[in-house]
Amino acid sequence: MSRLDERASGVFVIAVTPFTDDGSLDLTSTDSMVDFYLEKGATGLTVLGMMGEAPKLTTDESAQFVKRVMARVGPQFPVVVGVSAPGFASMKELSSRVMDLGASGVMVAPPSTLRTDDQLFHYFTGAAETLGDTPWVLQDFPLATTVQMSASAILRIVEAVPSCVMLKHEDWPGLAKIDALRAAEKKGARRISILTGNGGMFLPEEMHRGADGAMTGFAYPEMMSQIVAAHHASEFERAQDLFDAYLPLARYEQQPGLGLAVRKYTLAKRGAIATPMLRRPGPTLSAGDIADIDRLTARLARRLKELD
Amino acid sequence: MSRLDERASGVFVIAVTPFTDDGSLDLTSTDSMVDFYLEKGATGLTVLGMMGEAPKLTTDESAQFVKRVMARVGPQFPVVVGVSAPGFASMKELSSRVMDLGASGVMVAPPSTLRTDDQLFHYFTGAAETLGDTPWVLQDFPLATTVQMSASAILRIVEAVPSCVMLKHEDWPGLAKIDALRAAEKKGARRISILTGNGGMFLPEEMHRGADGAMTGFAYPEMMSQIVAAHHASEFERAQDLFDAYLPLARYEQQPGLGLAVRKYTLAKRGAIATPMLRRPGPTLSAGDIADIDRLTARLARRLKELD
Amino acid sequence: MSRLDERASGVFVIAVTPFTDDGSLDLTSTDSMVDFYLEKGATGLTVLGMMGEAPKLTTDESAQFVKRVMARVGPQFPVVVGVSAPGFASMKELSSRVMDLGASGVMVAPPSTLRTDDQLFHYFTGAAETLGDTPWVLQDFPLATTVQMSASAILRIVEAVPSCVMLKHEDWPGLAKIDALRAAEKKGARRISILTGNGGMFLPEEMHRGADGAMTGFAYPEMMSQIVAAHHASEFERAQDLFDAYLPLARYEQQPGLGLAVRKYTLAKRGAIATPMLRRPGPTLSAGDIADIDRLTARLARRLKELD
Amino acid sequence: MSRLDERASGVFVIAVTPFTDDGSLDLTSTDSMVDFYLEKGATGLTVLGMMGEAPKLTTDESAQFVKRVMARVGPQFPVVVGVSAPGFASMKELSSRVMDLGASGVMVAPPSTLRTDDQLFHYFTGAAETLGDTPWVLQDFPLATTVQMSASAILRIVEAVPSCVMLKHEDWPGLAKIDALRAAEKKGARRISILTGNGGMFLPEEMHRGADGAMTGFAYPEMMSQIVAAHHASEFERAQDLFDAYLPLARYEQQPGLGLAVRKYTLAKRGAIATPMLRRPGPTLSAGDIADIDRLTARLARRLKELD
Repeated sequence: MSRLDERASGVFVIAVTPFTDDGSLDLTSTDSMVDFYLEKGATGLTVLGMMGEAPKLTTDESAQFVKRVMARVGPQFPVVVGVSAPGFASMKELSSRVMDLGASGVMVAPPSTLRTDDQLFHYFTGAAETLGDTPWVLQDFPLATTVQMSASAILRIVEAVPSCVMLKHEDWPGLAKIDALRAAEKKGARRISILTGNGGMFLPEEMHRGADGAMTGFAYPEMMSQIVAAHHASEFERAQDLFDAYLPLARYEQQPGLGLAVRKYTLAKRGAIATPMLRRPGPTLSAGDIADIDRLTARLARRLKELD
Repeated sequence: MSRLDERASGVFVIAVTPFTDDGSLDLTSTDSMVDFYLEKGATGLTVLGMMGEAPKLTTDESAQFVKRVMARVGPQFPVVVGVSAPGFASMKELSSRVMDLGASGVMVAPPSTLRTDDQLFHYFTGAAETLGDTPWVLQDFPLATTVQMSASAILRIVEAVPSCVMLKHEDWPGLAKIDALRAAEKKGARRISILTGNGGMFLPEEMHRGADGAMTGFAYPEMMSQIVAAHHASEFERAQDLFDAYLPLARYEQQPGLGLAVRKYTLAKRGAIATPMLRRPGPTLSAGDIADIDRLTARLARRLKELD
Repeated sequence: MSRLDERASGVFVIAVTPFTDDGSLDLTSTDSMVDFYLEKGATGLTVLGMMGEAPKLTTDESAQFVKRVMARVGPQFPVVVGVSAPGFASMKELSSRVMDLGASGVMVAPPSTLRTDDQLFHYFTGAAETLGDTPWVLQDFPLATTVQMSASAILRIVEAVPSCVMLKHEDWPGLAKIDALRAAEKKGARRISILTGNGGMFLPEEMHRGADGAMTGFAYPEMMSQIVAAHHASEFERAQDLFDAYLPLARYEQQPGLGLAVRKYTLAKRGAIATPMLRRPGPTLSAGDIADIDRLTARLARRLKELD
Repeated sequence: MSRLDERASGVFVIAVTPFTDDGSLDLTSTDSMVDFYLEKGATGLTVLGMMGEAPKLTTDESAQFVKRVMARVGPQFPVVVGVSAPGFASMKELSSRVMDLGASGVMVAPPSTLRTDDQLFHYFTGAAETLGDTPWVLQDFPLATTVQMSASAILRIVEAVPSCVMLKHEDWPGLAKIDALRAAEKKGARRISILTGNGGMFLPEEMHRGADGAMTGFAYPEMMSQIVAAHHASEFERAQDLFDAYLPLARYEQQPGLGLAVRKYTLAKRGAIATPMLRRPGPTLSAGDIADIDRLTARLARRLKELD
């Protein structure tokens, strides 16, 4: 088992949770999905996040799914598990369970009621105490949680809590936050890993500002892995060319609420999972949406050929 | 087992969930709390609501707690169980489990993402389909959920879904909504029971507008049962005198976020539960808060003597 | 002209803005309203606040109204004017105008988009720079603004900005905030005046925690002035007895959205203003609401006699 | 003067309001900006919208700015003016003033407190009554207003209010809403014009679903006019090629809060306005942001050459 630490980098794909058409967990698709993500360049996986429909799973299903993923990726591959919960007791229970199964770390988002810096500090130090020495990722996703965390609020948590090793960065706009965190490190603040979200919609700029990679679930994970690789090879124009090719589809997948349905449709179309089923209640694609996606993926294929 | 229907009235106390000082379920206090609520005039109980710290319980704990409550109240006493959940699968699972244990019905609150009338209609018709023929209570609590439901949106759901038998009314302000619902019934809309919340802070006025009673958790349930009784006996000034006596304390308990700690402190002080413990994360009373409550309860005792 | 400073205390009544039945400014009622507030014990007035329908006035009307109020109260009586505005240019313009007219200070609420401590600090230091040496009141009213300010965020602003002399305290719950601010002063933080809002619903407790008085608009300002006086005379039970008598009506007036209509109805009934007109769009009282208020005011009169 | 009606189509550019470096209105830049927009294919202009910093202008400045714009565009060119205001009296005053100056219509956004369909209906029928026979645009921009309007809520307003002639569509996701509105028209609902926002980020798809054009302020208005033209010529792939070229920059400009600073920087760089000044309080671009924009505009120029 690898333990997540502040040197983590690359692409941690936010995995969907596959269901069969009757709504039960699809473990066969879990295997094929894991294979797909690895093949497309994932250096880690994040499961049971918001886009993994985690709140719609029972505790037993969550454990069953994590177990299957762990078995497929093998013991050395880092897997982060979302353990956000209304109570610390449940957070501890799920966290212990998945760490025992071999997870590398867990991810915690703030409850939507938090507002002030002091409330954030109080909540996350409490969560960290609950999690013991389990390394954890601070999830900053204001569009979904309605909670805004300034760079200084994050730095205060990072300073007080050594087990916080990574920021899942998904503020929007968020580039100034990466600047501020990296500037603070230069002045002596403890370094943490910063992996970015937002469907990859700002990945080239985020890498320039000091991100270590991406943690997001766009149905073409190769976009993220290729951009990160090109960035590290200082091929910045190449990185941006790739980005531009994928952007029309990435933008379409990034529609709030509807996005997961777009993502699962695309993953099913690419053969990663058997069907695009979401658990209820959830959004449904219209014929027009499907025509849009089909058109955009066809254009993407042509554009990638031009770039070769 | 009694099945909840649209004739339900009186006082359904929103029960707290008692914990021991180490944070585990306190089943002994569960018994004493149930006895206390019944002795103070409860005609029904509602468990696993927002004020029951339901989201902090595991599924097993939820079932264990409901079972204990059911055993104590006996088969004929109506118990409503909160089953709000992010996914319909979990809602169905918990609902089936508690109905098998003998619950009279369940309660469903809207997820905080819903906004438009159509979204509400879509969500609740989906939930109702999931719940099958289980009678259910529509929970309208904008201050907590951020979801606002107009009278017409409620009526549309009531008309389409026969299994919706009650409104847990907790809008603020909310008197006009009771007016509108009862006016619609006079014009032919299906009747539902309306039990009101907000800690009883508007109970006399709500009864005048046509409420059937209260569903709230103020630590002096006798306030609600006496006001409802006085109202039915047309002793309106008596009802208001009682209300006025309890109001200073009810107001103090109604502070958002802090209120449950006030409530549990008072229940412990009254002997209903062993300790005022809340599961983490949760608010804590300061010495000043405790002094306030002690002062207010002492004044209440004196005032009630004057009224006798 | 008196300048507002950190020693301000007593009752600053939040004045309504009277309109005639055709919706124009009612300057005759402005005079009678001012007389009424002074007669009931106001030690200051706050105009053009949220409950003064300020955003519904044109700039010229605002100046006209402030001028009339200033003329009536005379040069030594402190008047605070709400100058919250989306842009600093408008804030400066209105502020200069009313200070020239003889106002004692201005009041600024945070725009609803602010979330983090840093955003608050940035906004209020910018506002203070705009206001120059005009003394100003920091308005903390999360229920209306959706902005939450921790005690430490407030202290940071107070420390950086000497012209911030008062907190209009209206958080809910908010007692712990007064505790924290007064505790910080004991450790050396600069003192500011704290006047509390929330319609007086927690005034006895707020005085115990260290408030200097009230700044709110309950239609019976004598409640606030008598409680503050009783508190200063250490007649705490007397203060609470008075409070309890007014509470049923204060609670009714405190209904969000509807409350201003209740307040203006009551003020008109008491003869302070000619008609209860609100500018559109605004709420309207139903016959049931009016019956409630009439019943509650009649009960209040009886209860006050009993207390005499 | 042309009156806005339900046949309006093309590109109504949301104009910025230019300021000089000392923060005063820049009327010279107003002229050059208008010329720029017209040259780039605008078929209409919308001024004093949210992105026009309207709330930061005084009433006199607003009128002065509108007058200057009207003089520059001439009497036949349609100009829509944002008149959203907390009170109907102010809305009427501004509306009358700008219609007298020759505006074609006005635009109204819902106040952020509205939630239910009934509240929306009540508000907009009241606003329409206030506006008399002035044609108006219903602004649907949930990300900024926090108000969500379903297609059925919009249709109800459209049916009741003949003076509502256009939807400024800016929901996200929003394609299904266009589908629903156009489907309703096929069943007999009154037609309205639909111009879309969101910085043009979904313009090709929106045109497919039945939009009549765009009303947004992306600093390259030629993107919108060319896409609309290509769409009408049934050159769909050409439309999408153009879109894809501009998308990386459009995405960057679409960052909430920061976007207007990006837009004004780009407009200044293109010579449309003299300086990128925003009125305070407002966001500021960092050196990194400026480097990003410069890089993206350089890439855009190259990409457009390739497409020629």
